[in-house]
Order: sequence, then structure tokens, then C-alpha cells
Amino acid sequence: MSFSFEPIGIIHSCFKEKFGIPRQAGLVPAARASLELLPPYNRPEAVKGLEDISHLWVLFVFHQCLRKEWKPTVRPPRLGGNRRVGVFASRSPFRPNPLGMSAVELLSIEHTENSLRLHLKGVDMMDGTPVLDIKPYLPYADSLPSAQGSFAPLAPERAQTVRFSEPAEAFLNSLDEGEADYLRRLIVQVLEQDPRPAYLVNDAQRTSFGMHLCDINLRWTLDQGYTRVTSIQPIQS
Amino acid sequence: MSFSFEPIGIIHSCFKEKFGIPRQAGLVPAARASLELLPPYNRPEAVKGLEDISHLWVLFVFHQCLRKEWKPTVRPPRLGGNRRVGVFASRSPFRPNPLGMSAVELLSIEHTENSLRLHLKGVDMMDGTPVLDIKPYLPYADSLPSAQGSFAPLAPERAQTVRFSEPAEAFLNSLDEGEADYLRRLIVQVLEQDPRPAYLVNDAQRTSFGMHLCDINLRWTLDQGYTRVTSIQPIQS
Repeated sequence: MSFSFEPIGIIHSCFKEKFGIPRQAGLVPAARASLELLPPYNRPEAVKGLEDISHLWVLFVFHQCLRKEWKPTVRPPRLGGNRRVGVFASRSPFRPNPLGMSAVELLSIEHTENSLRLHLKGVDMMDGTPVLDIKPYLPYADSLPSAQGSFAPLAPERAQTVRFSEPAEAFLNSLDEGEADYLRRLIVQVLEQDPRPAYLVNDAQRTSFGMHLCDINLRWTLDQGYTRVTSIQPIQS
Repeated sequence: MSFSFEPIGIIHSCFKEKFGIPRQAGLVPAARASLELLPPYNRPEAVKGLEDISHLWVLFVFHQCLRKEWKPTVRPPRLGGNRRVGVFASRSPFRPNPLGMSAVELLSIEHTENSLRLHLKGVDMMDGTPVLDIKPYLPYADSLPSAQGSFAPLAPERAQTVRFSEPAEAFLNSLDEGEADYLRRLIVQVLEQDPRPAYLVNDAQRTSFGMHLCDINLRWTLDQGYTRVTSIQPIQS
């Protein structure tokens, strides 16, 4: 018995690689993405009523985590990467059926003759993520503030303060004000989460890191007391 | 591009037919079910850590709603069955990819030599439902009490008071006390939700209804001011 699903849409997001993606929706409120509905689902009738809705569930495939073998346990980053828990007691993307679900804010719906896009906020999805379904968030059924017992009951604490080097500041200052503000907030929120996987956190020798974010290469170092953005380089497309 | 998933488990539930299933998880708190993990997923390691967790997400297939054609709009029962909204603005089971998600309470984990079952509460899933994934509920990411704008922002109001006929009372009194208490609560909570689909609600002539619940046939009538359970008949298996 198996079930086959075709994507109804695709995510266009600032997160171009796995490294640096927030570990849950909402942790990086600045993170925006658009969900492009694919034909034949890009019809305005199919989203009629969504314009009144503040938050959506996005059900998607962890398309970078498809593999044939499954493992019954995982080592979550929130447990320092040392302790194992059952895959079904975790939100790890490496699971028997690599399905993800994210509650995100719906900012707007953009409809042109040939396309229908939902603009989303607070995303934790990689660029190119295939989306299988979207549903309105229903607080009376979905919001359980007193659910207990997870090993990660609270949002992770923010890591060290983020500072920008002079060259990084100069790059931001060269952008339009709106773009610079957005990119600065995004960088701060992504780095405050400390995107390092556990094996890098446990490697005291390694203090310099880089990631591809939107259309920039971002590099930073970890110093005593703060995270320092050393360089921001545009990627030639 | 399509993605294929095999069930990791199967639901054993009191809801033997579509009619009467609560429209969201949590609406009928009494409704219990067990989730039987299928081989090779029925290994204790795979659920290690779940024993501390109060609530789970169950991702499943609406297996009674598989059909080849999709419709861009649906007529939700909460809008009286007259108004159409986009399928993606609804939680209708009839959707391009018939995926369901339910936040349910985890009561216990039962592990024997050959099987692993999770006992669940507050379910809205039909008997035989194929389960694709389970995940711990994370309040910090999943609980958005102030999400707004759905056409069904609040749980439905409870319908009329439920009363039992003398024969129905006699049947309940013939059961073990625990079983009778459970069945009584389940019947009351299911009928308080008014399980009639919109086309039956709009049919004033029809006042008598029946459904298959657990191992009984339940019949009831709608009278001025209350719902009356007329008969409870055990189903010979």
C-alpha cells in the first residue's frame, strides 16, 4: 500500500542550502518566502477566502532529505547532538516519510494572468521545497499552548549579539534602504538562532562560518560575547 | 514530479464510517483510538522519548476521499453548505492531495513482543486510516492562539441536549460500568456536535438518523429542543 502525491506548489525562499534554515517556523519572523501554486492549482477560486486568513499550515516534502534507509533514532541539535531520541519523538527532517509542516503568516496573495503566489512570513523552508497542501490555521483545533513533554518545549534562546564588520556595513549601506533593512534583520535573526549543527558547535577550533542566503554569501565568526558578520558578498547570477 | 509514501501505521477507531466523525481533532474529547505502528516502524527505539509527550500531530491520508478529480471550491458545513470557498481555504477532506493533520492527546504507549500501539484521545480519524507520520506537538512553533480570519474561527457551538430513550438506557445499563460510561460520553459528545452534513440539516423532513459507532448501531431523532437516542444495537461480528 502506498500513496502518491504531486506538488500543488513550490517554495521560493531565501534559504538556498540546508545550513542556516531556522529549525521551526516562526523562529525567524523576518524570513519571507513565496509559494507559487503550480497549474492546475493556480486558479483564484482555489484560494477564495484565504485573503481573510492570517496564518496557514504548509505541508511539504523535505526534498533534500529523501533517502532510502530510515533510522529509528535521531540526535536532535536541541539535545547537543549527543543524545538519541526516537525519530517519531522528534521533528527531524530525516524520517520514514519526509513530510514537514509549518505554521506561517500569510502576508498577501499575488495573482497575475499566469501565476498565483502566496507571500509568506516566518518560514523555515528551503528554496525549491515541493508543497503538497495548504490549510487554514484553526486556533480552536490547532492551538494547544499547554501541550507538554517535548525535549524542546520552549523556543531556543537567542545566541550571542550580532555585530557587522565595516565592510559588511558598507555593503548594506550600498543597498536600497528597504532592502538593507530587510537583509539586516534577516541576517541578525538567522545568526541569533546559531545555525551551526551540533557537530560544529562541539568543534571549538572552528570559529568561522559561511552560508548562502538570498543572493549573498554571508560569512561570520564567533568571538567571545558576540557573532561578527565579517563579509557580505553578492552572488553573481 | 511525484512523491510516494508508505503508511507507518494504521488507526483503529470507533468511527467506522464517514458520517459522525468529528470535524476536527479535540471536538469530541472522549473519542479514543489506537495507532498501530506497522513493521518495520513498530520498534521501541522509534518512539523513544514519546512517553514524556502529551500531544502529537498525526499526519494521515483521507483514504475514503481519494478520487481522481479535484474541485477548486468546496461548500463547508460551517457555512451551511450553501457558500463556496477555495479548497485551500478549507479543511475539507476532498482536496488535491487528501492529507489530514490532527493534534491529539497521547494517553499511553503499549508495547508487546509483536506490536507497538499508541493510545490517542480526541481523535477525528476513521477506522482504518493510513498514517504517514507522527510528530511531537511543539507549542512554541505550533500554537498560534491569535491566528485569525478563518470562516470557522471558533469551535462549533454544541447542538441540542442529548437524552436517551428507555431502551437505550437499558442497553447501557447492561454493560460494564466503565464501558457504559465511556460509550455514554462518546455518544453525547458526538451527537452534541450535530454530525449531519449540510444537505441533511437543510432537509426539515428528515428527523431520524443512524450511524455505526464502535460496535453498535446508534439511532437518534431530532425533536424540538433535544436530540433523543432512540436505540443502541450491538453489531454482531
